[in-house]
Amino acid sequence: MDFILEVDKIKNIFRQTYLTDGNRKENDAEHSWHLALMAIVLKEYAEEEVDLARVLPMVLIHDIVEIDAGDTYAYDEMAALTKADRETKAARRIFGILPEDQREWMIGLWREFEAYETPDAKFAHMLDNSQPLLLNDASEGKSWAEHHVKKSQIYKRNRKTKEGSLEVWEYMQEIIQKHVQLGNVVEDMEEKIK
Amino acid sequence: MDFILEVDKIKNIFRQTYLTDGNRKENDAEHSWHLALMAIVLKEYAEEEVDLARVLPMVLIHDIVEIDAGDTYAYDEMAALTKADRETKAARRIFGILPEDQREWMIGLWREFEAYETPDAKFAHMLDNSQPLLLNDASEGKSWAEHHVKKSQIYKRNRKTKEGSLEVWEYMQEIIQKHVQLGNVVEDMEEKIK
Repeated sequence: MDFILEVDKIKNIFRQTYLTDGNRKENDAEHSWHLALMAIVLKEYAEEEVDLARVLPMVLIHDIVEIDAGDTYAYDEMAALTKADRETKAARRIFGILPEDQREWMIGLWREFEAYETPDAKFAHMLDNSQPLLLNDASEGKSWAEHHVKKSQIYKRNRKTKEGSLEVWEYMQEIIQKHVQLGNVVEDMEEKIK
Repeated sequence: MDFILEVDKIKNIFRQTYLTDGNRKENDAEHSWHLALMAIVLKEYAEEEVDLARVLPMVLIHDIVEIDAGDTYAYDEMAALTKADRETKAARRIFGILPEDQREWMIGLWREFEAYETPDAKFAHMLDNSQPLLLNDASEGKSWAEHHVKKSQIYKRNRKTKEGSLEVWEYMQEIIQKHVQLGNVVEDMEEKIK
């Protein structure tokens, strides 16, 4: 029960992405709910066989560490340097509230997500990378334009997205290209990298 | 993708429950995320064997109909009269955006939740009923006090909560009794109904 109350704080960790209506930014609880729903709906597009009984808990808990570590904006390179340390410390404290068996299981699942190697983790990251692209597209590229995001930055962040789902990644590339043409994303790359 | 974007609207459907910090009310996406996490953590307290591969999608989608039908406050008896009709119409439209196989599966899961008969649905309702009690307790009974909620109303709503988990329901009864004593819940029943 202490853990259930503690994680309520994730509802106040706000991200840089706007909701589809563009009226306000999204928080981590809403984002995690959305990823879980996407996992169910997009499972058939996974590059390798994935297990929803692991992917759903993985995406539901993947941002819990941000209660202590804060949201690190995808394109903030300075904050990225300290992200791993901040998040590991946070994982120890927050998952540490749980009974031992649940603590070990959740920390393991979170580490698996961070390691980005198993089919489940790759699928989860594909969702985590694609969901803000969908929201950015629906909110007319507002967040990209505000942060002067470059196409190369989006591609760098998404270099492994195709390993989760090539088909979804191809769909996302169309969105990116559209916003390059609209001027919401800065064109600094010649070629589309498939 | 149309469905994934459409359901983003659930992040703007606000409930009557305050977050644990008492600063603002919770929305349906946050609430659904919280129930899914509770399902994982509290599974061992389920009265009967439950299948998380069904319970997780069930709680993640259970409030999607409120995009059209709105949130019906637990203790609003007038609104409750039209709730089923409004929600069925909403389910047809919103789940209707999905491909046929996913549409049928999700409508089935939502109907199973509403019917409140299977072990998975009883467990899901136990979570749906308990989570606002936990948040009301953490936010010092603010929402109960604002709505002059009576103990008998809480017990009426929770008459089947024990079928999802007797142990969690006993914990919740302690919370209710505490807030009766604090004056946040109106005492209008003599006995504690176990």
